[in-house]
Amino acid sequence: MSDNMNDIDIFNETDSILIKKTLVNGKIKDIFVSDTGIIEEISDKYSGEYGEPEFIIDGESTVASPGFSNTHTHSAMTLLRGYADDMHLQEWLSEKIWPLEAHLSAEDVYNGTMLASIEMIRSGTIAFNDMYFFMEEAARAVYDSGIKAVLCHGFIDFGNEEKREAEIKATEKLCEHIKSMNNPRIKAAVGPHAPYTVSKEGLLWCSAYSKENDIGIHIHLSETEQEVKDCIEQNNKRPSKVLDECGCLSKRTVAAHGCWLDDSECELLGKIGVFVAHNPVSNMKLAVNRAMPYQKLIDSGVNVTLGTDGCSSNNNLDILEEMKTAALLQKFFWNSDTVLPAHETLKMATSAGKKALGFGEGELKTGAEADIVLINTKTPCMTPLFNWESNIVYSANSNAVDTVICNGRVLMHDGFIPNEEEICKKASDSAYSLVKRYNDSL
Amino acid sequence: MSDNMNDIDIFNETDSILIKKTLVNGKIKDIFVSDTGIIEEISDKYSGEYGEPEFIIDGESTVASPGFSNTHTHSAMTLLRGYADDMHLQEWLSEKIWPLEAHLSAEDVYNGTMLASIEMIRSGTIAFNDMYFFMEEAARAVYDSGIKAVLCHGFIDFGNEEKREAEIKATEKLCEHIKSMNNPRIKAAVGPHAPYTVSKEGLLWCSAYSKENDIGIHIHLSETEQEVKDCIEQNNKRPSKVLDECGCLSKRTVAAHGCWLDDSECELLGKIGVFVAHNPVSNMKLAVNRAMPYQKLIDSGVNVTLGTDGCSSNNNLDILEEMKTAALLQKFFWNSDTVLPAHETLKMATSAGKKALGFGEGELKTGAEADIVLINTKTPCMTPLFNWESNIVYSANSNAVDTVICNGRVLMHDGFIPNEEEICKKASDSAYSLVKRYNDSL
Repeated sequence: MSDNMNDIDIFNETDSILIKKTLVNGKIKDIFVSDTGIIEEISDKYSGEYGEPEFIIDGESTVASPGFSNTHTHSAMTLLRGYADDMHLQEWLSEKIWPLEAHLSAEDVYNGTMLASIEMIRSGTIAFNDMYFFMEEAARAVYDSGIKAVLCHGFIDFGNEEKREAEIKATEKLCEHIKSMNNPRIKAAVGPHAPYTVSKEGLLWCSAYSKENDIGIHIHLSETEQEVKDCIEQNNKRPSKVLDECGCLSKRTVAAHGCWLDDSECELLGKIGVFVAHNPVSNMKLAVNRAMPYQKLIDSGVNVTLGTDGCSSNNNLDILEEMKTAALLQKFFWNSDTVLPAHETLKMATSAGKKALGFGEGELKTGAEADIVLINTKTPCMTPLFNWESNIVYSANSNAVDTVICNGRVLMHDGFIPNEEEICKKASDSAYSLVKRYNDSL
Repeated sequence: MSDNMNDIDIFNETDSILIKKTLVNGKIKDIFVSDTGIIEEISDKYSGEYGEPEFIIDGESTVASPGFSNTHTHSAMTLLRGYADDMHLQEWLSEKIWPLEAHLSAEDVYNGTMLASIEMIRSGTIAFNDMYFFMEEAARAVYDSGIKAVLCHGFIDFGNEEKREAEIKATEKLCEHIKSMNNPRIKAAVGPHAPYTVSKEGLLWCSAYSKENDIGIHIHLSETEQEVKDCIEQNNKRPSKVLDECGCLSKRTVAAHGCWLDDSECELLGKIGVFVAHNPVSNMKLAVNRAMPYQKLIDSGVNVTLGTDGCSSNNNLDILEEMKTAALLQKFFWNSDTVLPAHETLKMATSAGKKALGFGEGELKTGAEADIVLINTKTPCMTPLFNWESNIVYSANSNAVDTVICNGRVLMHDGFIPNEEEICKKASDSAYSLVKRYNDSL
């Protein structure tokens, strides 16, 4: 797919790039990307107006799509992939996940986030929304991998004031750190974990802090029936209402899951302009028993996006798989063969996702940031090519992802990511060492 | 992954092969495969007893799994991939799929089945169960691609005697043709389409013919609620009972779907020893509104297998994706986070699947046919490797499939399949020409 196949420099620079003869919305086009990472021209044949490109990518037999955004994950949980599956939720959390997480180090989070970043790049993801801890290390991994991310410290106080003070400090520290990095690819958010794990005082602080610092909020909302029931019992109102009263809902809020939202909540979220991230794989694996009410959310004006959730409830970060599972789950659960068609699914992963993270509009057009995925149409799963959107959503797998460009920088080309093997090795070592430390502590 | 990376001969011969240092059930082993396609030795270090291997595959950083079986598909429907999606079922069939299929040629079926074969090989599939028409051409494609298959002509008479006679002739012709090929990789089956599309006379003929010729039966069973309701209305009994009375249920029967089976049917199928093929992706996409009662089937002694169904209701033939979707759908629909764990899912795709097709036991052991998949553990989605079965089912994608060996012959190595691009090109041409012929006919 490249005239520069062996030219490793293609990964290191933000030189100008000309993609020749790729399919953009069904038509063969050239795309010129400037050295500042902007799409300067999309035309039948590059005009030469912006100078000679430093790199040329042969886009023949590829479809160009806007890059994908993963709007809900806990990326360093890649280290826990396959550590415990097929268990009852509470047992799984309290006996497997939490005890292991208690031994996680900052270095582990760096290695796990590096692994997550390259795994996401492999399926065409150019940005993600992350909630975990040791997030300064996650920021370092995002910087090193070249991807974009919105990072938040998972804020949990369980109504405990001391814990809350610690979470406030951790949040402030992360936000200041990211501010000091001054890198447009890396943003901070406030991460109140969920209405059932954060006190009203905590939620109010998060809301005020996000407004003061003009940053987003990333939160879990209505994943399980039980948490909704508990919320109603304790507050006499549903979770969205609780969040709204604490000021946590705005056009800068990404709420993950939303499986158990009722109609009134969908309308509230739509009125405010909240983004709701659908995580179908995780929801199915954890048997949450209801699918997000996608059509009601859309009809209420909500921007619905896609997320993979963390690896321990998925167990991968493959956004192509997530698109397909979303389109399937909506059809199956809501008993409709026409709900969530391919075109809308792709929108969730592209324009809606990028808007949710504040990284732009997620469309291939001149003047936009060059976040571009080239998908190889000569692979079996993309053959024939009657409908490029349907093929991406329903039949493509990451095998077909050829090239990923983020902010004008090539992160993967011809299926090759620099240092991939070394990153996997370091993450493996971290994961096995983590389990050893845990076992030694018993 | 290979010492013979550029040695194209590895694909053409059934020479002896030594796979060095691959993980077999979590332990590093050498596997020696003789030139007759049999696993002669699995040991810590190859003894040399069976002579010098003609090819050596470096299995370090791979997991060896028994090859996967896809027990329900309509393979040439790859040509219709993405042609029509997100439509109401009846409209989709009557306005899109059937009119196009009416123009299919024998050559189209060859090209579509070639595409299907390499697509299946890419995800580690070594055998499939196919129902379509122009099946002599499908047999030619199976022969050329090196994969194994059980092929049947889709027998539909709608109670019409003339149609039935034609279907009987087509079935006999196919079975005689496959017999004359005398190739252990290619078997014939009888393919009564479904209880609602084949008359009792047709079912009785199919049953008698399968017994006379000692071949299996491949049929659709209880995919939608409507067909079950209609069956009860017409026959005053459920579909499994109708099939049983016509002699269509035996240890050689593979019944696809089974979404709407009730408890008594599960017990009947278990008692007889029928194989039931779960097709979760297709069932979700077509919104059938109930998941196969997996646990009840297992508890009744049924061998449950996996199928992708055809490309127009999936839209790919990726058995790894099917494994994950099966494990997810069962958990979600039956509201249980422990049902269908990874180990059982893998069994559906390996031992149960191969037994269903009469191709052996589907285990890696000495004396067995060498149907082996090597999965690269250095890819992000396989990192870390706490549990190889969990990683294959929940996190692997076809990117990680490195080598596929079928009957001792290498069909894919280091992600490379000979002639893949040419096969895709021919299938594309067939698909576009088919649509053109259809459009010209309007």
